[in-house]
Amino acid sequence: MGAPVVAVVGGGQLARMMAAPAAALGVHLRVLAESEHASAAQVVADAPVGRAADDDALRRLVCTPVPADVLTFEHEHVPGEALRAIAAAGTSVQPSADALVHAQDKIVMRTRLSELGVPVPRWAAVGSREDLEAFLAVVGGRAVVKTSRGGYDGKGVRVVGSAEEVADWFDAAHAGGPALLAEELVPFVRELAVLAARTPSGEARTWPVVESVQVQGVCWEVIAPAPDLDPETERAARDIAVQIAEGLDVTGVLAVELFLLPAPPAPPAETGASVPETGGSTPETGGSVAETGGSASTRGRVLVNELAMRPHNSGHWTIDGSVTSQFEQHLRAVLDLPLGDTAARAPWTVMANVLGSAHDQVTDALADVTAADPGAKVHLYGKDVRPGRKLGHVTVSGADLEQVRARAEAAAAILRGGPGPIYWGESDG
Amino acid sequence: MGAPVVAVVGGGQLARMMAAPAAALGVHLRVLAESEHASAAQVVADAPVGRAADDDALRRLVCTPVPADVLTFEHEHVPGEALRAIAAAGTSVQPSADALVHAQDKIVMRTRLSELGVPVPRWAAVGSREDLEAFLAVVGGRAVVKTSRGGYDGKGVRVVGSAEEVADWFDAAHAGGPALLAEELVPFVRELAVLAARTPSGEARTWPVVESVQVQGVCWEVIAPAPDLDPETERAARDIAVQIAEGLDVTGVLAVELFLLPAPPAPPAETGASVPETGGSTPETGGSVAETGGSASTRGRVLVNELAMRPHNSGHWTIDGSVTSQFEQHLRAVLDLPLGDTAARAPWTVMANVLGSAHDQVTDALADVTAADPGAKVHLYGKDVRPGRKLGHVTVSGADLEQVRARAEAAAAILRGGPGPIYWGESDG
Repeated sequence: MGAPVVAVVGGGQLARMMAAPAAALGVHLRVLAESEHASAAQVVADAPVGRAADDDALRRLVCTPVPADVLTFEHEHVPGEALRAIAAAGTSVQPSADALVHAQDKIVMRTRLSELGVPVPRWAAVGSREDLEAFLAVVGGRAVVKTSRGGYDGKGVRVVGSAEEVADWFDAAHAGGPALLAEELVPFVRELAVLAARTPSGEARTWPVVESVQVQGVCWEVIAPAPDLDPETERAARDIAVQIAEGLDVTGVLAVELFLLPAPPAPPAETGASVPETGGSTPETGGSVAETGGSASTRGRVLVNELAMRPHNSGHWTIDGSVTSQFEQHLRAVLDLPLGDTAARAPWTVMANVLGSAHDQVTDALADVTAADPGAKVHLYGKDVRPGRKLGHVTVSGADLEQVRARAEAAAAILRGGPGPIYWGESDG
Repeated sequence: MGAPVVAVVGGGQLARMMAAPAAALGVHLRVLAESEHASAAQVVADAPVGRAADDDALRRLVCTPVPADVLTFEHEHVPGEALRAIAAAGTSVQPSADALVHAQDKIVMRTRLSELGVPVPRWAAVGSREDLEAFLAVVGGRAVVKTSRGGYDGKGVRVVGSAEEVADWFDAAHAGGPALLAEELVPFVRELAVLAARTPSGEARTWPVVESVQVQGVCWEVIAPAPDLDPETERAARDIAVQIAEGLDVTGVLAVELFLLPAPPAPPAETGASVPETGGSTPETGGSVAETGGSASTRGRVLVNELAMRPHNSGHWTIDGSVTSQFEQHLRAVLDLPLGDTAARAPWTVMANVLGSAHDQVTDALADVTAADPGAKVHLYGKDVRPGRKLGHVTVSGADLEQVRARAEAAAAILRGGPGPIYWGESDG
């Protein structure tokens, strides 16, 4: 038997970061890259150029020059029909098209999570302006409207107070564009993320829950583990990730973005009253608003925001901060190999993204960043600089959170050529 | 300015293991591979095929398609004239041909270390059987004879009691083959190794000193840090590595293999007598036997055995066990970037080599080894199985040395398909 062959759709930084563990495990990695200059194509020996929407390119990816043992993904933008055809022809596709649709279509995802009883914000598919106005009336006049497909990093998301503010999206939807859904504005106190990996055989492991600090809808910083998280919520978040992975038959890495709700008021000590349930009081709207599937007392204080079925920015800390990185784990999982230890390797690990740069090339700052902090782990993606573009990240581990966080931010700031729009402030809503 | 380009002579596992940190740092790696199936060529996007002894191949390596910022090595078998020509044409060559010769020729190395006052075993260049017999008479009848060039992993090394036993090597030397040197048999108690990295600007850093457990002249296991090493010897070993790096103008990673001598007897408590010096009593042999350049009291209890000017098997533990791996540090050093933190990331890290395998392909054991130990870090080199061949290694970190060592050995044994020739015995001499 030769080396296992993993074919990956997509040649961005996620595929690039799979290269190191693939080489270590003796796994042959083949990536379908958007161009020969794509992030992963720069470093992977076997990187055919082609589009994910091109059936012939996909077929070559899984067949040439030697058949792949498994087809997997670094992004969700792959037509389900093509994947079903490849699976029908005998290639293992992980995750399957049936699982992947939940990462492609937010309405499908929200519907299924609601069925599973997973705690989610109140939401509704809104096929018309009237639907949206009805939902707004129920949730207090303001809501988040999302396109069901095609959104990422804050794109395809608007906070609105009237249907008029997404008139263009309704027009697009009626012209065949993505359908829309509306979600309540959750009064969260922090954003968390939990990653799970699951194999086709059913083994599942989760990493410690992290805090994801978002700036303008984009991940700015990840703190592992999430500071001051009570063990019940940690447990609930990990259980939710496994429940979703099992319920949706996800294989490989699953990233679950979560809202952390405010702590319930402490019960009066004398009465021993039970903790009041929040999130379970669903308004009556004729069934078009889905129920929040949990409550603070039974499922912790978290609601599921988004899913991704691949390694995710919120898991980049695992490269340096965990015994097994999300990239190694994804390869192990899709190959149905036993999963690796997900324990943290240090009390604290902070990952800071490099979003845009004032340098001509971000590598121009290598000497400065390595001089400034000999212990900072720098990860660059081989991309040309564009405003706000994810060019790399920096990870720092240590025993003192404030120090670790300041070091990660300082190193990332050197690569960015400046501190960026916001650093230490509150998460934006 | 584009991404830095590092060209590496050699396409074995050392070049393969440079690929991950090169990608992370945004450094373009180009390796001169022996074939398109070479260990590094399997994973590196830019891997021209050619021989290190082919001047044209070397020139293409540093020029095509874009000029390399630096030329470096994963093995020493590169003609010095070719390197001097490349340096004269304006490409940075790290380490330089003048430094590299000390890793190519043991007589040149021993001569220079003796001049520097670095502690080495008693030795002599032996141009004739008479020279060797004279040396044998001085050192007690038995000695190690080595070819000055071309030896590795126990090859080119014989322990002899008479010149007759290396008659073939003398014949070869007289016919233009490598010259010979003889070294005393050092009564060492353990073998140690210390790695340093040094930049062209002069920054130098060392990693913790490790114990290298050798079996039949080949590294079987590395324990980091070396157990029960007194701080003075640790300090002495690190100082020696930096002294050699500076004295020989080494750039990039330098590996120094050391013999640890028995502890001197404790001085009688009442008299306060000074520690007796060992290794300094050089026999009178007309100057042909070099002096040991140190003593137990001034330089610790170590003698320098061998050098390598590149990442080295004794430093593989740093990938998982140190903040900065030897492979990342080598790239930083040859690019004259500031060096990374060399601190250990765990109390103990043990690296066990996979030397040969009973499996058809070592990847056939991936499911078994990952199932057996979810925390073991597996590193495979993409090589076909041959008896005794270095096919990969396993690293385990933790707080309990016995446990860590047993886990590393157990995982490596699964990949080998058996426990191997020797496991827990004493180092062979």
